[in-house]
Amino acid sequence: MKINGKPYRTIWVAADGWSVEVIDQTKLPHQLEIVALKSADDAAMAIKQMIVRGAPLIGATAAYGLAMALRADASDEALERACAMLAETRPTAINLKWALNEIASAVRNRPRDERVAAAYARASEICEDDVETCRRIGENGLPLIEAIAAKKGKVNLLTHCNAGWLGCVDWGTALAPIYMAYDKGIDIHVWVDETRPRNQGASLSAFELSGHGVKHTIIPDNAGGHLMQDGQVDICIVGTDRVTANGDVANKIGTYLKALAAKDNDVPFHVALPHTTIDWTMPKGVGVIPIEERSADEVLKMTGRLPDGGLATVEIANPGSPAANPGFDVTPARLVTGFITERGRSAATEEGLLGLYPERRKA
Amino acid sequence: MKINGKPYRTIWVAADGWSVEVIDQTKLPHQLEIVALKSADDAAMAIKQMIVRGAPLIGATAAYGLAMALRADASDEALERACAMLAETRPTAINLKWALNEIASAVRNRPRDERVAAAYARASEICEDDVETCRRIGENGLPLIEAIAAKKGKVNLLTHCNAGWLGCVDWGTALAPIYMAYDKGIDIHVWVDETRPRNQGASLSAFELSGHGVKHTIIPDNAGGHLMQDGQVDICIVGTDRVTANGDVANKIGTYLKALAAKDNDVPFHVALPHTTIDWTMPKGVGVIPIEERSADEVLKMTGRLPDGGLATVEIANPGSPAANPGFDVTPARLVTGFITERGRSAATEEGLLGLYPERRKA
Repeated sequence: MKINGKPYRTIWVAADGWSVEVIDQTKLPHQLEIVALKSADDAAMAIKQMIVRGAPLIGATAAYGLAMALRADASDEALERACAMLAETRPTAINLKWALNEIASAVRNRPRDERVAAAYARASEICEDDVETCRRIGENGLPLIEAIAAKKGKVNLLTHCNAGWLGCVDWGTALAPIYMAYDKGIDIHVWVDETRPRNQGASLSAFELSGHGVKHTIIPDNAGGHLMQDGQVDICIVGTDRVTANGDVANKIGTYLKALAAKDNDVPFHVALPHTTIDWTMPKGVGVIPIEERSADEVLKMTGRLPDGGLATVEIANPGSPAANPGFDVTPARLVTGFITERGRSAATEEGLLGLYPERRKA
Repeated sequence: MKINGKPYRTIWVAADGWSVEVIDQTKLPHQLEIVALKSADDAAMAIKQMIVRGAPLIGATAAYGLAMALRADASDEALERACAMLAETRPTAINLKWALNEIASAVRNRPRDERVAAAYARASEICEDDVETCRRIGENGLPLIEAIAAKKGKVNLLTHCNAGWLGCVDWGTALAPIYMAYDKGIDIHVWVDETRPRNQGASLSAFELSGHGVKHTIIPDNAGGHLMQDGQVDICIVGTDRVTANGDVANKIGTYLKALAAKDNDVPFHVALPHTTIDWTMPKGVGVIPIEERSADEVLKMTGRLPDGGLATVEIANPGSPAANPGFDVTPARLVTGFITERGRSAATEEGLLGLYPERRKA
């Protein structure tokens, strides 16, 4: 997608042919900075510090991280070490483990001198596949928006966190149908949950939607329930970091609260995801998916622009009070109206998912 | 209650015997500043700018504001003008209108030369009554906490916004039972919702609880649903700005989302209030109580402490993106486990409320 008219992806191989460049998402929306990743350690640091974030982009970054590790040392031992190191950077998103497995499978049983090329080739495929997957998610979600537009003329959509192109390689998951609706001339307006504590909504989704010209309004995370009760939300679409076999949805902390409000007010609540986000090994998610506990500083401090244009970090809470910061929550499948994937839409049930991915049916 | 060991109320008549002093709550927790209010205009400004906030304290401030207006001009016309001006400062809290009516009733039909003294006397009574009312709310809420402590040894309580002594004259509503439980030696820990966009939880509730020594943890507003699902919340207690005759509860934006999560996880959800917060004229609240829309700047900017100790305000969102800022939401009575008032506890129903206030029964 475009930033100031110039097309970008979130990750690409640099001019040197082997290192990787990414947009530093901790600096958005204040500054557009490109960061070079030159090793598996760099990739792990970028994931941990959330220079890159969003389940699909975490996967793509880890894939290139593993390729860079193999470039330094193509042995099985180095592969295993780098896999383990990258796997533990973030515990909730399942795409991370999927991508590492993809690279490991692509190089295992190959002679060492072919491994680096095979790893880069698979990492590149993962990125290209993600772009095409997200484009299809957009196409498959679009009819939901078109149906509302046909009935009401305009569409008010609510989203939480950032599941846009910045969280993927391009297009996004939850935001892909919005971009397609906008491009088709549908009168769409997006309520953007601020998404405390890291404000990915106010910082990243608002930045993306602005860049594409989509009408949007930032709201405190507290406001969505009231807006739904007041009839100001026609549909919710969010992304996810892991969907379990029964349809439970791990996503950014606060998603569960919006799903409850949507259910209470008969607002459809859809979850957009690529197949790589489905964890077929986990029969259910509530109480099972590991929830990352992040730094209290993310809650207690805030970075923003001073009137002179510089950046400053201020302490916003009562001095000395501790904070807790669980990064994700799990929305039970019963609260989810449906899934939007690259293969189409389904109910948020095991049968629904297996209908889209019949190859996963056990014999 | 105490700040650094020194007892305070939130509002008091100054040494001159007629002007009023309040704690500037927009400066907390960063600075403790006392502001002098010397006219009805000053009082209205203090309410509008949230130098004072919290339904009971808004009422007390408006009462003194009206007394100061009468001191300048004791005519019926001046009384009406000042009443109208103060009434429109905040639309949601019903205590404001109640307090203005109390002062107007106390002075109407009196000779002009007695009006000022009568107004000050009634305003002082309103403050004293509020302290006693809140103390009783604490006593009536305490058994809920004691019952959990008896069963589990320790108590994890979640609250939203600030319904502590800073929102009242002393003690608080939702926090009064917590202070009493703490004083009785109960092992209580409070999850403090940050309460975006004005952060009354992280700024004021955390400040209050710290000052009294109560264990607490600040959490993003997004986190409460996850914590309840995870069994980490035994009870929720919040305050309210208006309860309608059927038991619907207007309170700080985001309360409704926590009530939904409490219901979904069988966590008791109680609302603490003085009788002055009940609007007997409104049969129901959802879709009826006026919801104040506040400035977008409250969402888009954040004030905090710089490393050098100074204060700075930073812009935190995508430049140019608009924000919406509804200040309150309405929690349907069906989600409320019960009310805690100065007269005892009741179900969140018309019958429950009339059981506590039988004088309100229509003949």
